[in-house]
Amino acid sequence: MKEYIANYFLTAGECNPEGTIPVTLLANRVIETATMHANILGVGYSRLIEDGMAWVLSRLSIEMHRWPEVNKSYSLRTWIESYNRHFSERNFEITDDKGEVLGYARTIWMTINLQTRQGGQLNGLEKLAEVVSDRPCLMDKCPRFTAIDPESAKSGDYTFRYTDCDFNRHVNTVRYMELLLNQWTLDFHDAHRVRRFDIAFMRESYFGENVKVLAAETAPNAFRCEIVGNEGPCVRSAISYTEI
Amino acid sequence: MKEYIANYFLTAGECNPEGTIPVTLLANRVIETATMHANILGVGYSRLIEDGMAWVLSRLSIEMHRWPEVNKSYSLRTWIESYNRHFSERNFEITDDKGEVLGYARTIWMTINLQTRQGGQLNGLEKLAEVVSDRPCLMDKCPRFTAIDPESAKSGDYTFRYTDCDFNRHVNTVRYMELLLNQWTLDFHDAHRVRRFDIAFMRESYFGENVKVLAAETAPNAFRCEIVGNEGPCVRSAISYTEI
Repeated sequence: MKEYIANYFLTAGECNPEGTIPVTLLANRVIETATMHANILGVGYSRLIEDGMAWVLSRLSIEMHRWPEVNKSYSLRTWIESYNRHFSERNFEITDDKGEVLGYARTIWMTINLQTRQGGQLNGLEKLAEVVSDRPCLMDKCPRFTAIDPESAKSGDYTFRYTDCDFNRHVNTVRYMELLLNQWTLDFHDAHRVRRFDIAFMRESYFGENVKVLAAETAPNAFRCEIVGNEGPCVRSAISYTEI
Repeated sequence: MKEYIANYFLTAGECNPEGTIPVTLLANRVIETATMHANILGVGYSRLIEDGMAWVLSRLSIEMHRWPEVNKSYSLRTWIESYNRHFSERNFEITDDKGEVLGYARTIWMTINLQTRQGGQLNGLEKLAEVVSDRPCLMDKCPRFTAIDPESAKSGDYTFRYTDCDFNRHVNTVRYMELLLNQWTLDFHDAHRVRRFDIAFMRESYFGENVKVLAAETAPNAFRCEIVGNEGPCVRSAISYTEI
């Protein structure tokens, strides 16, 4: 099964104050859909844990020209663009209840050894070659990020707490994204939509770690962001907004 | 349809550090299941909005002797225990993939007028009488909370930010719950399970509001909690843990 499609309904209780799907919920849907497809393909959690390995999301990019709205159905279609023994590129197309494309997402997944927390090799998964798809994903790949100049950035502080941590006992993907989105006010979010969100996960953060959150405007409504702990950056990110 | 049943699968990505469903995700499932059933019964969002009204969760109690675990299916069954023109009592039974009961939840929903943000009357919903169910919900009702003595409580501070706010443009239910759970460390949560979580929503909080979070131990591993803003308490709560 080269593609997997999941259908969802956006309830009011799930919406952001603007009445659309939060970027973070869409990120969770991306992760969930990827998990389901990997399970069906026999390369999911239960297969990797046999070798003491797990999938870790390394990069995530979402680009939407319209966001799913309250009380509407939406779908995610996912497929594998490429894989090798170190990582896998998995793409997504997001459509509305009429099948119209709302946007795309790209992810890069790495396997880590759960004991050493280091990258590991994916062996015995040659059958994945059969499900690689050449379906186009009409958005640019996640850029490579260099460090931003702290002097040019506004910054905030945060200490990670219990509900920021997940099954892997590190800070959860969407918590970093929330921390970034929280650098802007409700008024700003009411007047802008996220057009594109890129995030690269560089290092695990843990319970109790204190971090700085940096955001620097590099072009009108385009920001480079970073979350930096004692031992260097945890995530680097780019967020671009459009005015509405 | 007196009862509505929803089936879920708990992915690794959704789990807490202990490998079970977070209390907050179960709370979201409760809200989601209630929403779906109300929609089916014709008393959901789209019906109430015709009268400028909306459902608001007033009280939530969850009592579990076991929590759904990673990579397992679980189900929520919901039914209406009672209703009148001011509020509705809706209960839930949570079962595992073998149909064994893991615990229960109770909710009280009120209708508010979206303009005035005051409680309103539910008219024209007499047909709900036909779907009231006498299925037993084997847990006590949510207690009435009195104020706790700030002197006897440990306390923390928090300022509500963008991602804490939801479609109703106030702070989201589960954000209050997270704020309460975050009064304990990861180590504490590793050594304890939530046995029962009661929460009463007393007043809306908004973006930018600064609150104090109080937690006072009233018996071994039993706590009374409160989130208090400038204009009084937003939520009052009781959390009891069991050691594992």
